[in-house]
Amino acid sequence: MLAEVVAVGDELLYGDIINGNAAWLGRHLADVGVRVERSVVVGDDVTVIEQALRAAAGRADVVVVTGGLGPTQDDLTREGLAAAAGVGLRRDDFLEAQLRRRFRELGRQVPEMNYRQADLPESAEPLPNVPGTAPGVRAEIGQAVVYALPGVPHEMYAMFTASVLPDLLRRAGQPAVVVHRVLRTAGIWESAVAEAVAGEVERLRGVGNPTIAFLASGGQTRLRITARAGDRAEADRLIAPVEAAARAALGPAVYGVDDETLAGVVGRQLTTRTATIAVAESLTGGRLAAAFTETPGASAYFRGGAVVYATDSKASVLGVDPEILATDGAVSARAAAALAVGVRDLFGATWGLATTGVAGPDEQEGKAVGTLHLGLAGPDGTTTRSLRLPGDRPRIQTFAVVQALDVLRRTLSGLPVAGTGPSGAMELPDR
Amino acid sequence: MLAEVVAVGDELLYGDIINGNAAWLGRHLADVGVRVERSVVVGDDVTVIEQALRAAAGRADVVVVTGGLGPTQDDLTREGLAAAAGVGLRRDDFLEAQLRRRFRELGRQVPEMNYRQADLPESAEPLPNVPGTAPGVRAEIGQAVVYALPGVPHEMYAMFTASVLPDLLRRAGQPAVVVHRVLRTAGIWESAVAEAVAGEVERLRGVGNPTIAFLASGGQTRLRITARAGDRAEADRLIAPVEAAARAALGPAVYGVDDETLAGVVGRQLTTRTATIAVAESLTGGRLAAAFTETPGASAYFRGGAVVYATDSKASVLGVDPEILATDGAVSARAAAALAVGVRDLFGATWGLATTGVAGPDEQEGKAVGTLHLGLAGPDGTTTRSLRLPGDRPRIQTFAVVQALDVLRRTLSGLPVAGTGPSGAMELPDR
Repeated sequence: MLAEVVAVGDELLYGDIINGNAAWLGRHLADVGVRVERSVVVGDDVTVIEQALRAAAGRADVVVVTGGLGPTQDDLTREGLAAAAGVGLRRDDFLEAQLRRRFRELGRQVPEMNYRQADLPESAEPLPNVPGTAPGVRAEIGQAVVYALPGVPHEMYAMFTASVLPDLLRRAGQPAVVVHRVLRTAGIWESAVAEAVAGEVERLRGVGNPTIAFLASGGQTRLRITARAGDRAEADRLIAPVEAAARAALGPAVYGVDDETLAGVVGRQLTTRTATIAVAESLTGGRLAAAFTETPGASAYFRGGAVVYATDSKASVLGVDPEILATDGAVSARAAAALAVGVRDLFGATWGLATTGVAGPDEQEGKAVGTLHLGLAGPDGTTTRSLRLPGDRPRIQTFAVVQALDVLRRTLSGLPVAGTGPSGAMELPDR
Repeated sequence: MLAEVVAVGDELLYGDIINGNAAWLGRHLADVGVRVERSVVVGDDVTVIEQALRAAAGRADVVVVTGGLGPTQDDLTREGLAAAAGVGLRRDDFLEAQLRRRFRELGRQVPEMNYRQADLPESAEPLPNVPGTAPGVRAEIGQAVVYALPGVPHEMYAMFTASVLPDLLRRAGQPAVVVHRVLRTAGIWESAVAEAVAGEVERLRGVGNPTIAFLASGGQTRLRITARAGDRAEADRLIAPVEAAARAALGPAVYGVDDETLAGVVGRQLTTRTATIAVAESLTGGRLAAAFTETPGASAYFRGGAVVYATDSKASVLGVDPEILATDGAVSARAAAALAVGVRDLFGATWGLATTGVAGPDEQEGKAVGTLHLGLAGPDGTTTRSLRLPGDRPRIQTFAVVQALDVLRRTLSGLPVAGTGPSGAMELPDR
């Protein structure tokens, strides 16, 4: 089955909001063997919406359109869908009564315009919306089935999972499956990942299935192996040797698979060792703590952190010797080491992990933008690692968090920490 | 002039990466009066790329395609573009020599496949790439000009700004301009924003220009006023009365305009008052500090923060009275107040801002997911505010940061803090 995703909203075209819904849908449709070849974004214009839905229905078996189902005047998907299907819109009394009851329970006074959400194209059916208020719509245009879902992400996820997915599986009968296996790496460049697996990519070129794709983002590179087969087990059998070859080539750079996060992997390592951690941050400004606290249950191993942004606070809050700040500076390996020890002791953790550096746009203490010093204080002593990171301020902050987590991961697992010499001496590797 | 944006990459279709490039381009094209009606994402398939480029060139005057210009085997935009233009690909000796020299300078050994980046469709021209290695391409398909840019965001931004923008302005002669004015609000629901300006929206409905759109995301609602005119000054004249009416209706909910951030606005308020701030975080886990440190120059007013994630660390690090933790609990208004005082004093700041609550997915201390207590300690005393936030874990964490910053903003400016009774008593408002 072939699907096309249409996202509606001026805010998507004009850059106010990033199109996360299309990405989510692409992934979840592929998981049930529905191929997505094309994804379109159109603005809040009923004519353009109608054209896009009509064209999509002409090309694909399934069309999923998100957004434009809300209560405000620029929500025009119902109108565009009705026009594309060549039918009129009708007010559904049952849906309207449901909405009135819902608003009463929430104790909310709502303008009459909110009841536009009870309009449906003739011969279309509503899809219930559990978390929100606007119901979705299922309609048919020619041979294609069209699902209209809300634009609010968690409402869209819930409606897709509860209503669209079962419907698709029913329609597909015995779907061919598309299975992805993602190997997640950190600490090496995207081209190094591609080079490491170049032989495998070449071998698969003639075969065509599975395929390999490289996805670099946020300082990490993912390698996605995709297989199509009659069923899940067959797809897994195709993927296994490719995964094995890639892992053999990439070695310790692979930290996890699929949707695992670096912070989640580190969390599991700490839990296994009954260890805890505290973080001291300067240039990363809270993002390293945020990475840890993204994972539910982090309180089992994450004690907390200190964002010692002001230079003097490194001494007053974490006890860094002012002599270090005066001579080497706040952006130095010695400062990183002292920060790691200080935060470990302040929070009574097993490990202390510290970042200090220059995020930009300006230099600091005469040190270049992208300079990063990491400190890791543990039961057996303290090590540091120094790097030059590429990019602008947000990219450097993100990259620094990845490097910090990866140094911890490798250290906990006894893997080589790339870039640090055999004597533990600090190196400034190639950018 | 009409433009269409095409983004190439399986990772975009399958949800591994969000399509930030299309959003950025939509915004920057509109800023120079180039209208974007449609934005498409296609996978790494040379036939689908060719079809999409051909179709776009048939509909629009300008086509901007991003991604697929890299060195790996799944980078197929050059091939797709050549096919859509009906020409062949040729290796450009000058570009190849440039690439060889660049890699030599960086001291990088690169596989021969990297030199695919020196291929160009016949009769197309390269666009220089300053930060990266892959040059872009400018080609013509029929009456349309097609710009192919790298997918890496900061490389794409730089190439668009340096090469594409001047070219577009030249081609457009005297472009009609599209000007956006965004009013940013926090602290009230999207439907309340829409209701407040409903009269203005109705008035503009017949006029058609300017238009108003509502953009809710991350716990904030933006109101975008869009005007088309012969020049910038005329567009500004059309926008001014609409902006004035919206501001009158929305009052203190408006915190800024266009690309201002809540943290940036708060930073300016603190700077004006020669005041500093430190933050104490529990459920927000570092995100509040990260919001402050996103702004360059934050070190002028942001002293730092303590992420006291473990309950006992609230006492051991910030001096919260263990009696409070034992009786009211870590998730309480009394704890929020004590945390705010503690972090203010530890960092020697003018203000202390604290968050404590339940991010989920599990309840804590018998308190429901979404419970939030904010504490604000200043020169004149300490206040607290309590709320119930909707959504899941990431949404609650984001929303909590917005509420914390907004309470600070309103307090600094002497504006009413929505939801707190006249006596300063804490209320749990409607969700």
